[in-house]
Amino acid sequence: MPHITLNSGEPGIRGLFRFRPETARPLNELVEVLLRGPSTLTPGERELIAAYVSTLNKCQYCSSSHGAYAAEQLPGGQELVDQVRADADGAAISAKLKALLRIAASVQQGGLNVTEQQVAAARAAGATDVEIHDCVLIAAAFCMYNRYVDGLATELPEDPAFYAARAKRIAADGYLALLEQLQHQAV
Amino acid sequence: MPHITLNSGEPGIRGLFRFRPETARPLNELVEVLLRGPSTLTPGERELIAAYVSTLNKCQYCSSSHGAYAAEQLPGGQELVDQVRADADGAAISAKLKALLRIAASVQQGGLNVTEQQVAAARAAGATDVEIHDCVLIAAAFCMYNRYVDGLATELPEDPAFYAARAKRIAADGYLALLEQLQHQAV
Repeated sequence: MPHITLNSGEPGIRGLFRFRPETARPLNELVEVLLRGPSTLTPGERELIAAYVSTLNKCQYCSSSHGAYAAEQLPGGQELVDQVRADADGAAISAKLKALLRIAASVQQGGLNVTEQQVAAARAAGATDVEIHDCVLIAAAFCMYNRYVDGLATELPEDPAFYAARAKRIAADGYLALLEQLQHQAV
Repeated sequence: MPHITLNSGEPGIRGLFRFRPETARPLNELVEVLLRGPSTLTPGERELIAAYVSTLNKCQYCSSSHGAYAAEQLPGGQELVDQVRADADGAAISAKLKALLRIAASVQQGGLNVTEQQVAAARAAGATDVEIHDCVLIAAAFCMYNRYVDGLATELPEDPAFYAARAKRIAADGYLALLEQLQHQAV
């Protein structure tokens, strides 16, 4: 049961977006630009970083959600997402993405854990400064979203169909469109 | 030295705001609404939560910045901020704020660390659901800002006058006004 009384039966972060629209807007603008804005990393690659960090933070809602969004938008689908969760270094992804996931894992532990060697390895694998920047900020942002969702003990849908259905809508329309729809529903 | 080449000599998160204006905007909108928007917690109290979490995360730039912003806006000034950093439970602050800081400290460790007992104690001390929500989100957000600043190894001004001067401007004009000024400066 959530730690506070939410004004809807919406699960996960959706219940918090309904409860506090003032903070929902910048939170959604941030995730939209980070995961779907113009970038040399694909939306699927960026969702994979988000899902990976959420798994490390043991946030089931965000891990299931962004895992499904990554699976929807990556050629390797759910199998690839599961591979990355189990063993990112051994997964069938580019050397650049592996190096970025290592940086993301350090950020998850704490910003001071990112090493010059990790950054140099990402650069050697072809990562640009903007890609390194965005990887650090995606990882940091999911350390926020994960804590927000779990710190208020929001409801967790257990049916994988919930996440799969949402994945199709995120891939098609994005975070801001779904936020507007959520906020225009009757309570 | 920062891990990536920033296009200015700006320190801390300011250098990152200059480097990536697309993410700077929602990051500043979030901190403005969280720390300065309409609330039954004063801006000084909310800056104190931000400073406390930044100290727990060992992020010197954010700890110094938000410690100075809290000191500027709390009657107890810097002495009170230092008391809270050293021993929050023993500091000269309300029982409600102590209970909220305990929740913030749990969020800093991980969202799943927040307990029903901590939330019940905050409520017994007079905290509303919105205050508990905002405390959790402030703490979570600074787990992001701290990782962003340190994960990219941004420059740290060592002169306390830097933070004190900025504190007066944040208290007077807020985060969005300073962002606009930063982005209109010549590189």
